[in-house]
Amino acid sequence: NVKGDRLWDSLMEMAKIGATEKGGCCRLALTDLDKEGRDLFSNWCKEAGCTIKVDKMGNIFARRAGTRDDLPPVMMGSHLDTQPTGGKYDGVFGVLAGLEVLRTLNDFDVKTEHPVEVAVWTNEEGSRFAPAMVASGVFAGVFDLDYGLSRADLDGKTMGEELKRIGYAGTEEVGGREIKAFFEAHIEQGPILEHEEKTIGVVMGAQGQRWYEITITGQEAHAGPTPMARRKDALVAASKIITEVNRIGLDNQPFACATVGLIQSSPNSRNTIPGKVFFTVDFRHPKDEILSKMDAELRAFAEKTASEGGFEMAFEEIWYSPPVEFDKDCVNAVRKGAEIAGFSHMDIISGAGHDACYISRVAPTGMIFVPCENGISHNEEEEATPEDLAAGCNVLLHAIVERANI
Amino acid sequence: NVKGDRLWDSLMEMAKIGATEKGGCCRLALTDLDKEGRDLFSNWCKEAGCTIKVDKMGNIFARRAGTRDDLPPVMMGSHLDTQPTGGKYDGVFGVLAGLEVLRTLNDFDVKTEHPVEVAVWTNEEGSRFAPAMVASGVFAGVFDLDYGLSRADLDGKTMGEELKRIGYAGTEEVGGREIKAFFEAHIEQGPILEHEEKTIGVVMGAQGQRWYEITITGQEAHAGPTPMARRKDALVAASKIITEVNRIGLDNQPFACATVGLIQSSPNSRNTIPGKVFFTVDFRHPKDEILSKMDAELRAFAEKTASEGGFEMAFEEIWYSPPVEFDKDCVNAVRKGAEIAGFSHMDIISGAGHDACYISRVAPTGMIFVPCENGISHNEEEEATPEDLAAGCNVLLHAIVERANI
Ligand SMILES: NC(=O)NCCC(=O)O
Ligand SMILES: NC(=O)NCCC(=O)O
Repeated sequence: NVKGDRLWDSLMEMAKIGATEKGGCCRLALTDLDKEGRDLFSNWCKEAGCTIKVDKMGNIFARRAGTRDDLPPVMMGSHLDTQPTGGKYDGVFGVLAGLEVLRTLNDFDVKTEHPVEVAVWTNEEGSRFAPAMVASGVFAGVFDLDYGLSRADLDGKTMGEELKRIGYAGTEEVGGREIKAFFEAHIEQGPILEHEEKTIGVVMGAQGQRWYEITITGQEAHAGPTPMARRKDALVAASKIITEVNRIGLDNQPFACATVGLIQSSPNSRNTIPGKVFFTVDFRHPKDEILSKMDAELRAFAEKTASEGGFEMAFEEIWYSPPVEFDKDCVNAVRKGAEIAGFSHMDIISGAGHDACYISRVAPTGMIFVPCENGISHNEEEEATPEDLAAGCNVLLHAIVERANI
Repeated sequence: NVKGDRLWDSLMEMAKIGATEKGGCCRLALTDLDKEGRDLFSNWCKEAGCTIKVDKMGNIFARRAGTRDDLPPVMMGSHLDTQPTGGKYDGVFGVLAGLEVLRTLNDFDVKTEHPVEVAVWTNEEGSRFAPAMVASGVFAGVFDLDYGLSRADLDGKTMGEELKRIGYAGTEEVGGREIKAFFEAHIEQGPILEHEEKTIGVVMGAQGQRWYEITITGQEAHAGPTPMARRKDALVAASKIITEVNRIGLDNQPFACATVGLIQSSPNSRNTIPGKVFFTVDFRHPKDEILSKMDAELRAFAEKTASEGGFEMAFEEIWYSPPVEFDKDCVNAVRKGAEIAGFSHMDIISGAGHDACYISRVAPTGMIFVPCENGISHNEEEEATPEDLAAGCNVLLHAIVERANI
């Protein structure tokens, strides 16, 4: 079995990097803090006897040699970047659970035929740079390298520039190599396991996502002497669309999710009618047909709002990630691991996207969920218990041992 | 008569300070650029033989001595600060028209019994620091000095600190002295004069204003695995209120204006449900009863939205500026000036607030409007013709000469 205390201590140590007042973490992708987190992880892996390689997207691979080191590796991992007001577990758990598995193999001096790797995927969150899971996407051939390196934050800084700046623009090619199996452990980020009182979620797949960027351009004018009838208030138009996004989410139940997470209004002055508003839309559904229906509803409403109000509109779907089904054998390995270890478990569909979603296109893939308090994530108050985290890590250990051939 | 070319050249010279690509101006209150503008104005006034005094709110008074210099001054003026995407004329015209009047008095070697002053009022726009007209408000005793100096921008910097930083924290007491009459020339900032084809607006008064700050607090959570039914999306609540603000404006016609000019959403991440949204509301109406009715409608809707959705709400009315009526004699002096000079004119109510609104509480006050292109202001494309600006300046000259006793 893994050492739950050691896993917990590592999680708490990593959580100091970018710790926020409210007990969360702000360690945005490719910032100085992200570099600190990456360095800490790399040092821990070196201490555990691993070799470290970094690819051109900044993905880190810590490798424990196999007895037949030419065989494709069995891989674990997740991400170290967080939301601006993120928690201590989202992503970090999957990375440090991987490390804990390696440390446990060392403890018992277990030799595996296949090498075992822990991956840290760059910019999974999609918060500083959109879209999410961009570097695992490049690894899986979903995006090309140029696309990945040219993703820019709201200040125009690109991932390529920022990787160089923090010293994580590696030399390895991104992807293109065989992986025997990939497993990602993660907090659920939703309320289902807690509600059903299960310790382990056996993840069957993930829902689909569509992300949009919308810019509405009206006309700046003085809030006082400009009659209502002459206005082109871009924020009023945006507010109608935001309300409609919410309506679309509510009317496509069960399962639909619809969110406007980011908005920027310009010139953002109290007594000037907003001339330009930029905002994003995040749509999710496990069924592709419903996701398409939501897409059509949004487009129709946005176009109507823009044309009726005389606004210019730039409407771009910037990301489509179709629903994912994980590999049956990997799913079974997770379920079997939970049974052997004696944890209550249930099958579950992931509401969030994960690096595993993209890796599943190039390798047999499975995921392990553990509960988080009140289903809350992307929030500084995100919490999970040491017991549940250790349980998830033990299931990961079982799956890895099964696949790496002792 | 004034020299229209000289006025125009000064306007264009001042417009270089903070000039934007689209031909506008960004010279926010108490920035380095505001200091540059103030320095330029002060130097011009010294060249015109004036003495300069600065008060504790940073208001600048350039004074041309009278033959009976103990008499209270006749005063002109406006402001040099602009909106973030402001124009070249809003405020600046009233200041430089004042300077042009002084230069014209010098040209013809006219002696006045009363001293004549040109005032530059600090932070009229209310964009960097809310509320608007704060320093003329302190001058008029509407706000106390501590209130004025402690107004803070969104980064927490106060007017007091910023006045010191740019060297315009003067030593003169703010207000408390007699002014014989105050006249402010300004572009209309609305479409009426242009539509009615009149050169001069004889300003009878200004509509009332109420400004609000609203903060909605919900709960940050992940945009993917958080079911719609469990969400407290602060941006959805804010969007409903913004749509209602617009509805209140539309339903209280004629005359009502209703604007949400500023919004900040937090954490502003594409895949996180917004946990907190801060926004402002600007309500205007010439009739106080209707303004109160708009206030009641907003409060009721905001409270309902917050309580139904389980949001916390901080709702604060941060500014109330009642409708203003200008002094009959000053209004007549403006109308007479337009008639003598032979300009078409009409009576008009100001849609915007002006420093003159507060000064009217402590001195007989009048205002002169000239048309602006398409009624557009608080926009980099703000335009006015040299002819109309010269006409407004000539009317100002007439009013001053009448009041200052040659
Ligand atoms: N796990 C996670 O929070 N991923 C971010 C991508 C998404 O928004 O689903
Ligand atoms: N004149 C002008 O733009 N004043 C700003 C204050 C207001 O919003 O009315």
